Amino acid sequence: MVITVLRLGHRPIRDKRVTTHLFLAARAFGADRGIYSGVKDRKLEETLAGVCREWGGSFRVEYAESWKKVVEEWSGKVIHLTMYGVPLRDTIRAIRSEPADKIIMVGGEKVPTEAYSLADWNVSITSQPHSEVSALALFLHEYFEGQELAREFDGARFRVVPQERGKKVLDITSP
Amino acid sequence: MVITVLRLGHRPIRDKRVTTHLFLAARAFGADRGIYSGVKDRKLEETLAGVCREWGGSFRVEYAESWKKVVEEWSGKVIHLTMYGVPLRDTIRAIRSEPADKIIMVGGEKVPTEAYSLADWNVSITSQPHSEVSALALFLHEYFEGQELAREFDGARFRVVPQERGKKVLDITSP
Repeated sequence: MVITVLRLGHRPIRDKRVTTHLFLAARAFGADRGIYSGVKDRKLEETLAGVCREWGGSFRVEYAESWKKVVEEWSGKVIHLTMYGVPLRDTIRAIRSEPADKIIMVGGEKVPTEAYSLADWNVSITSQPHSEVSALALFLHEYFEGQELAREFDGARFRVVPQERGKKVLDITSP
Repeated sequence: MVITVLRLGHRPIRDKRVTTHLFLAARAFGADRGIYSGVKDRKLEETLAGVCREWGGSFRVEYAESWKKVVEEWSGKVIHLTMYGVPLRDTIRAIRSEPADKIIMVGGEKVPTEAYSLADWNVSITSQPHSEVSALALFLHEYFEGQELAREFDGARFRVVPQERGKKVLDITSP
Protein backbone atom coordinates (compact mmCIF):
# COMPACT_ATOMS: atom_id res chain seq x y z
CA MET A 1 0.00 0.00 0.00
CA VAL A 2 1.55 3.22 -1.23
CA ILE A 3 1.00 6.65 0.32
CA THR A 4 1.56 9.65 -1.92
CA VAL A 5 1.55 13.24 -0.68
CA LEU A 6 0.23 15.64 -3.31
CA ARG A 7 1.07 19.30 -2.78
CA LEU A 8 -1.15 21.71 -4.73
CA GLY A 9 0.01 24.97 -6.29
CA HIS A 10 3.67 25.20 -5.26
CA ARG A 11 5.29 28.60 -5.88
CA PRO A 12 9.10 28.29 -5.74
CA ILE A 13 9.91 31.63 -4.11
CA ARG A 14 7.12 31.96 -1.62
CA ASP A 15 6.68 28.29 -0.73
CA LYS A 16 10.21 26.98 -1.08
CA ARG A 17 10.87 26.18 2.55
CA VAL A 18 7.32 25.19 3.48
CA THR A 19 7.08 22.69 0.61
CA THR A 20 10.54 21.35 1.47
CA HIS A 21 9.46 20.90 5.10
CA LEU A 22 6.21 19.29 3.94
CA PHE A 23 7.99 16.63 1.88
CA LEU A 24 10.63 16.07 4.56
CA ALA A 25 7.81 15.46 7.04
CA ALA A 26 6.08 13.20 4.48
CA ARG A 27 9.24 11.10 4.21
CA ALA A 28 10.05 11.07 7.94
CA PHE A 29 6.50 10.06 8.91
CA GLY A 30 6.23 7.21 6.46
CA ALA A 31 4.80 8.41 3.14
CA ASP A 32 6.32 6.78 0.03
CA ARG A 33 6.42 9.61 -2.48
CA GLY A 34 5.57 13.22 -3.17
CA ILE A 35 3.99 14.95 -6.14
CA TYR A 36 3.62 18.69 -6.49
CA SER A 37 1.80 20.92 -8.93
CA GLY A 38 2.20 24.63 -9.52
CA VAL A 39 5.62 25.75 -10.72
CA LYS A 40 8.36 23.19 -11.36
CA ASP A 41 11.20 23.58 -8.85
CA ARG A 42 14.34 21.61 -9.56
CA LYS A 43 15.96 22.86 -6.36
CA LEU A 44 13.16 21.37 -4.25
CA GLU A 45 13.53 18.01 -5.99
CA GLU A 46 17.30 18.07 -5.49
CA THR A 47 17.00 18.92 -1.80
CA LEU A 48 14.76 15.94 -1.22
CA ALA A 49 16.94 13.63 -3.32
CA GLY A 50 19.96 14.78 -1.29
CA VAL A 51 18.23 14.00 2.01
CA CYS A 52 17.36 10.51 0.73
CA ARG A 53 20.96 9.89 -0.35
CA GLU A 54 22.20 10.81 3.13
CA TRP A 55 19.40 9.51 5.34
CA GLY A 56 18.08 6.61 3.26
CA GLY A 57 14.74 5.36 2.06
CA SER A 58 13.16 5.58 -1.35
CA PHE A 59 11.02 8.70 -1.01
CA ARG A 60 10.90 10.56 -4.34
CA VAL A 61 9.39 13.84 -5.45
CA GLU A 62 7.88 14.39 -8.89
CA TYR A 63 6.29 17.32 -10.62
CA ALA A 64 2.82 17.13 -12.19
CA GLU A 65 1.50 19.89 -14.38
CA SER A 66 -2.09 19.19 -13.39
CA TRP A 67 -2.95 18.03 -9.87
CA LYS A 68 -6.49 17.44 -11.09
CA LYS A 69 -5.33 14.96 -13.71
CA VAL A 70 -3.32 13.11 -11.04
CA VAL A 71 -6.39 12.82 -8.85
CA GLU A 72 -8.85 11.97 -11.64
CA GLU A 73 -6.61 9.22 -13.02
CA TRP A 74 -5.97 7.83 -9.55
CA SER A 75 -7.40 4.38 -8.86
CA GLY A 76 -6.93 4.51 -5.08
CA LYS A 77 -8.44 6.76 -2.43
CA VAL A 78 -7.95 10.50 -1.96
CA ILE A 79 -7.72 12.27 1.39
CA HIS A 80 -7.72 16.06 1.47
CA LEU A 81 -6.40 17.73 4.60
CA THR A 82 -8.33 20.92 5.33
CA MET A 83 -9.39 22.80 8.46
CA TYR A 84 -12.96 22.73 7.09
CA GLY A 85 -13.22 18.94 6.93
CA VAL A 86 -14.42 16.20 9.27
CA PRO A 87 -12.28 15.77 12.40
CA LEU A 88 -9.39 13.28 12.21
CA ARG A 89 -10.73 11.27 15.13
CA ASP A 90 -14.02 10.66 13.28
CA THR A 91 -12.39 9.53 10.04
CA ILE A 92 -9.03 7.91 10.75
CA ARG A 93 -10.31 4.40 11.51
CA ALA A 94 -12.21 4.19 8.24
CA ILE A 95 -9.24 5.55 6.30
CA ARG A 96 -6.82 3.18 8.02
CA SER A 97 -8.94 0.13 7.26
CA GLU A 98 -9.14 1.00 3.56
CA PRO A 99 -6.61 -1.22 1.75
CA ALA A 100 -6.25 0.89 -1.43
CA ASP A 101 -3.28 3.13 -2.22
CA LYS A 102 -3.83 6.66 -0.99
CA ILE A 103 -3.14 10.21 -2.04
CA ILE A 104 -2.98 12.75 0.76
CA MET A 105 -3.70 16.10 -0.82
CA VAL A 106 -2.57 19.32 0.85
CA GLY A 107 -3.19 22.78 -0.46
CA GLY A 108 -1.35 26.02 -0.26
CA GLU A 109 -2.97 29.41 0.25
CA LYS A 110 -5.92 28.93 -2.06
CA VAL A 111 -7.40 25.51 -2.62
CA PRO A 112 -9.68 25.06 -5.67
CA THR A 113 -13.24 24.02 -4.81
CA GLU A 114 -12.77 20.88 -6.89
CA ALA A 115 -10.25 19.56 -4.35
CA TYR A 116 -13.08 19.21 -1.85
CA SER A 117 -15.38 17.41 -4.26
CA LEU A 118 -12.74 15.09 -5.73
CA ALA A 119 -11.61 13.86 -2.29
CA ASP A 120 -13.02 10.69 -0.75
CA TRP A 121 -12.42 12.24 2.65
CA ASN A 122 -11.95 15.88 3.63
CA VAL A 123 -10.19 15.63 6.99
CA SER A 124 -9.49 18.38 9.53
CA ILE A 125 -6.57 18.28 11.96
CA THR A 126 -8.28 20.73 14.33
CA SER A 127 -10.58 23.34 12.78
CA GLN A 128 -7.99 26.03 13.47
CA PRO A 129 -5.58 27.61 11.01
CA HIS A 130 -2.07 26.20 11.32
CA SER A 131 0.18 24.58 8.74
CA GLU A 132 0.06 21.92 6.06
CA VAL A 133 3.30 20.59 7.61
CA SER A 134 1.77 20.02 11.06
CA ALA A 135 -1.48 18.75 9.53
CA LEU A 136 0.34 16.15 7.45
CA ALA A 137 2.58 15.02 10.32
CA LEU A 138 -0.39 14.57 12.65
CA PHE A 139 -2.36 12.72 10.00
CA LEU A 140 0.47 10.27 9.26
CA HIS A 141 1.20 9.81 12.97
CA GLU A 142 -2.41 8.81 13.64
CA TYR A 143 -2.62 6.80 10.44
CA PHE A 144 0.42 4.71 11.37
CA GLU A 145 -0.54 4.71 15.06
CA GLY A 146 2.85 5.98 16.12
CA GLN A 147 4.75 3.08 14.52
CA GLU A 148 6.32 5.53 12.07
CA LEU A 149 8.38 7.10 14.88
CA ALA A 150 10.59 4.01 15.02
CA ARG A 151 10.89 3.55 11.25
CA GLU A 152 14.33 2.76 9.81
CA PHE A 153 15.45 3.88 6.37
CA ASP A 154 17.35 1.50 4.11
CA GLY A 155 20.54 2.59 2.43
CA ALA A 156 21.22 5.53 4.75
CA ARG A 157 24.67 7.00 4.85
CA PHE A 158 24.15 8.57 8.27
CA ARG A 159 22.45 7.37 11.40
CA VAL A 160 21.76 9.39 14.55
CA VAL A 161 22.57 7.81 17.90
CA PRO A 162 20.14 9.49 20.32
CA GLN A 163 21.86 11.50 23.04
CA GLU A 164 20.70 13.25 26.20
CA ARG A 165 23.05 16.14 25.34
CA GLY A 166 24.71 17.03 22.06
CA LYS A 167 24.91 15.19 18.75
CA LYS A 168 26.18 11.82 17.71
CA VAL A 169 25.95 10.86 14.05
CA LEU A 170 27.49 7.70 12.60
CA ASP A 171 28.68 7.52 9.02
CA ILE A 172 27.55 3.95 8.45
CA THR A 173 29.08 3.68 4.98
CA SER A 174 32.62 4.13 6.28
CA PRO A 175 34.54 0.90 6.85
CA MET B 1 0.75 25.34 33.83
CA VAL B 2 1.97 27.48 30.96
CA ILE B 3 3.61 26.20 27.77
CA THR B 4 5.82 28.61 25.89
CA VAL B 5 7.30 27.90 22.47
CA LEU B 6 10.69 29.54 22.01
CA ARG B 7 11.90 29.90 18.42
CA LEU B 8 15.64 30.48 18.09
CA GLY B 9 17.28 32.72 15.51
CA HIS B 10 14.35 33.91 13.38
CA ARG B 11 15.34 35.61 10.10
CA PRO B 12 12.39 37.58 8.69
CA ILE B 13 12.98 36.98 4.99
CA ARG B 14 14.12 33.40 4.97
CA ASP B 15 12.01 32.11 7.87
CA LYS B 16 8.89 34.25 7.59
CA ARG B 17 6.45 31.54 6.62
CA VAL B 18 8.04 28.72 8.59
CA THR B 19 8.04 30.74 11.84
CA THR B 20 4.45 31.81 11.17
CA HIS B 21 3.45 28.19 10.64
CA LEU B 22 5.38 27.20 13.77
CA PHE B 23 3.49 29.65 15.99
CA LEU B 24 0.15 28.86 14.35
CA ALA B 25 0.78 25.19 15.13
CA ALA B 26 1.85 26.14 18.67
CA ARG B 27 -1.46 27.93 19.17
CA ALA B 28 -3.63 25.30 17.47
CA PHE B 29 -2.06 22.45 19.44
CA GLY B 30 -2.42 24.06 22.83
CA ALA B 31 0.67 26.14 23.68
CA ASP B 32 -0.01 29.40 25.52
CA ARG B 33 2.54 31.78 24.08
CA GLY B 34 5.45 32.18 21.71
CA ILE B 35 8.80 33.91 22.05
CA TYR B 36 11.30 34.32 19.23
CA SER B 37 14.87 35.53 19.08
CA GLY B 38 16.89 36.57 16.05
CA VAL B 39 15.58 39.56 14.11
CA LYS B 40 12.47 41.39 15.31
CA ASP B 41 9.59 40.92 12.87
CA ARG B 42 6.53 43.07 13.43
CA LYS B 43 4.72 41.44 10.52
CA LEU B 44 5.02 38.01 12.15
CA GLU B 45 3.59 39.35 15.43
CA GLU B 46 0.73 41.04 13.59
CA THR B 47 -0.15 37.90 11.64
CA LEU B 48 -0.44 35.92 14.85
CA ALA B 49 -2.41 38.66 16.61
CA GLY B 50 -4.79 38.76 13.63
CA VAL B 51 -5.37 35.01 13.79
CA CYS B 52 -6.15 35.26 17.51
CA ARG B 53 -8.61 38.09 16.91
CA GLU B 54 -10.45 36.01 14.33
CA TRP B 55 -10.10 32.50 15.76
CA GLY B 56 -9.91 33.22 19.49
CA GLY B 57 -7.71 32.27 22.40
CA SER B 58 -5.01 34.23 24.14
CA PHE B 59 -1.86 33.05 22.34
CA ARG B 60 0.65 35.89 22.07
CA VAL B 61 4.03 36.25 20.42
CA GLU B 62 6.86 38.31 21.89
CA TYR B 63 10.37 39.09 20.77
CA ALA B 64 13.41 38.46 22.98
CA GLU B 65 16.81 39.80 22.05
CA SER B 66 18.57 36.92 23.80
CA TRP B 67 17.06 33.43 23.81
CA LYS B 68 19.77 32.42 26.25
CA LYS B 69 18.67 35.00 28.79
CA VAL B 70 15.07 33.75 28.47
CA VAL B 71 16.19 30.21 29.21
CA GLU B 72 18.66 31.09 31.96
CA GLU B 73 16.11 33.23 33.82
CA TRP B 74 13.41 30.59 33.41
CA SER B 75 12.25 28.91 36.62
CA GLY B 76 10.39 26.06 34.89
CA LYS B 77 11.60 23.23 32.68
CA VAL B 78 13.13 23.43 29.22
CA ILE B 79 12.52 20.95 26.43
CA HIS B 80 14.59 21.20 23.27
CA LEU B 81 13.25 19.50 20.15
CA THR B 82 16.10 18.12 18.06
CA MET B 83 16.59 15.11 15.80
CA TYR B 84 19.69 14.24 17.86
CA GLY B 85 17.84 13.91 21.18
CA VAL B 86 16.19 11.07 23.07
CA PRO B 87 13.09 9.62 21.35
CA LEU B 88 9.73 11.16 22.26
CA ARG B 89 8.34 7.82 23.40
CA ASP B 90 11.12 7.48 25.99
CA THR B 91 10.70 10.97 27.45
CA ILE B 92 7.09 12.09 27.09
CA ARG B 93 5.74 10.45 30.26
CA ALA B 94 8.37 12.08 32.47
CA ILE B 95 7.82 15.46 30.80
CA ARG B 96 4.03 15.17 31.09
CA SER B 97 4.18 14.35 34.79
CA GLU B 98 6.38 17.37 35.53
CA PRO B 99 4.08 20.08 36.97
CA ALA B 100 6.33 23.11 36.25
CA ASP B 101 5.79 25.61 33.43
CA LYS B 102 7.62 24.59 30.28
CA ILE B 103 9.55 26.14 27.45
CA ILE B 104 9.68 24.15 24.25
CA MET B 105 12.70 25.35 22.37
CA VAL B 106 12.98 24.88 18.60
CA GLY B 107 15.91 25.92 16.49
CA GLY B 108 16.30 27.06 12.94
CA GLU B 109 19.14 26.05 10.65
CA LYS B 110 21.96 26.26 13.15
CA VAL B 111 21.34 25.62 16.82
CA PRO B 112 24.01 26.82 19.28
CA THR B 113 25.62 24.04 21.32
CA GLU B 114 24.40 25.75 24.50
CA ALA B 115 20.80 24.95 23.59
CA TYR B 116 21.59 21.26 24.15
CA SER B 117 23.26 21.83 27.51
CA LEU B 118 20.68 24.30 28.86
CA ALA B 119 17.75 21.98 28.12
CA ASP B 120 16.35 19.63 30.75
CA TRP B 121 15.34 17.28 27.94
CA ASN B 122 16.61 17.05 24.37
CA VAL B 123 13.80 15.24 22.60
CA SER B 124 13.74 13.77 19.09
CA ILE B 125 10.58 13.37 17.04
CA THR B 126 12.17 10.69 14.84
CA SER B 127 15.92 10.91 14.23
CA GLN B 128 15.27 12.02 10.66
CA PRO B 129 15.46 15.54 9.24
CA HIS B 130 12.03 17.12 8.81
CA SER B 131 10.60 20.35 10.17
CA GLU B 132 10.33 22.27 13.43
CA VAL B 133 6.63 22.65 12.57
CA SER B 134 5.95 18.90 12.40
CA ALA B 135 8.23 18.25 15.40
CA LEU B 136 6.35 20.76 17.55
CA ALA B 137 2.90 19.54 16.48
CA LEU B 138 3.80 15.91 17.23
CA PHE B 139 5.30 16.84 20.58
CA LEU B 140 2.23 18.81 21.68
CA HIS B 141 -0.11 16.11 20.38
CA GLU B 142 1.63 13.47 22.48
CA TYR B 143 2.02 15.82 25.43
CA PHE B 144 -1.72 16.55 25.54
CA GLU B 145 -2.59 12.96 24.56
CA GLY B 146 -4.75 14.09 21.67
CA GLN B 147 -7.05 16.20 23.87
CA GLU B 148 -5.78 19.33 22.09
CA LEU B 149 -7.57 18.28 18.89
CA ALA B 150 -10.95 19.13 20.45
CA ARG B 151 -9.82 22.36 22.10
CA GLU B 152 -12.12 25.39 21.83
CA PHE B 153 -10.84 28.96 21.70
CA ASP B 154 -12.57 31.69 23.71
CA GLY B 155 -13.54 34.95 22.09
CA ALA B 156 -13.37 33.65 18.52
CA ARG B 157 -15.06 35.62 15.79
CA PHE B 158 -15.26 32.63 13.46
CA ARG B 159 -16.02 29.01 14.00
CA VAL B 160 -15.75 26.18 11.45
CA VAL B 161 -18.62 23.73 11.18
CA PRO B 162 -16.96 20.53 9.92
CA GLN B 163 -18.23 19.40 6.50
CA GLU B 164 -17.77 16.31 4.38
CA ARG B 165 -17.48 18.58 1.32
CA GLY B 166 -16.78 22.30 1.10
CA LYS B 167 -16.54 24.98 3.77
CA LYS B 168 -18.90 26.26 6.41
CA VAL B 169 -17.72 29.06 8.66
CA LEU B 170 -19.97 30.84 11.16
CA ASP B 171 -19.41 34.45 12.14
CA ILE B 172 -20.34 34.00 15.78
CA THR B 173 -20.12 37.68 16.65
CA SER B 174 -22.95 38.61 14.26
CA PRO B 175 -26.39 38.90 15.90
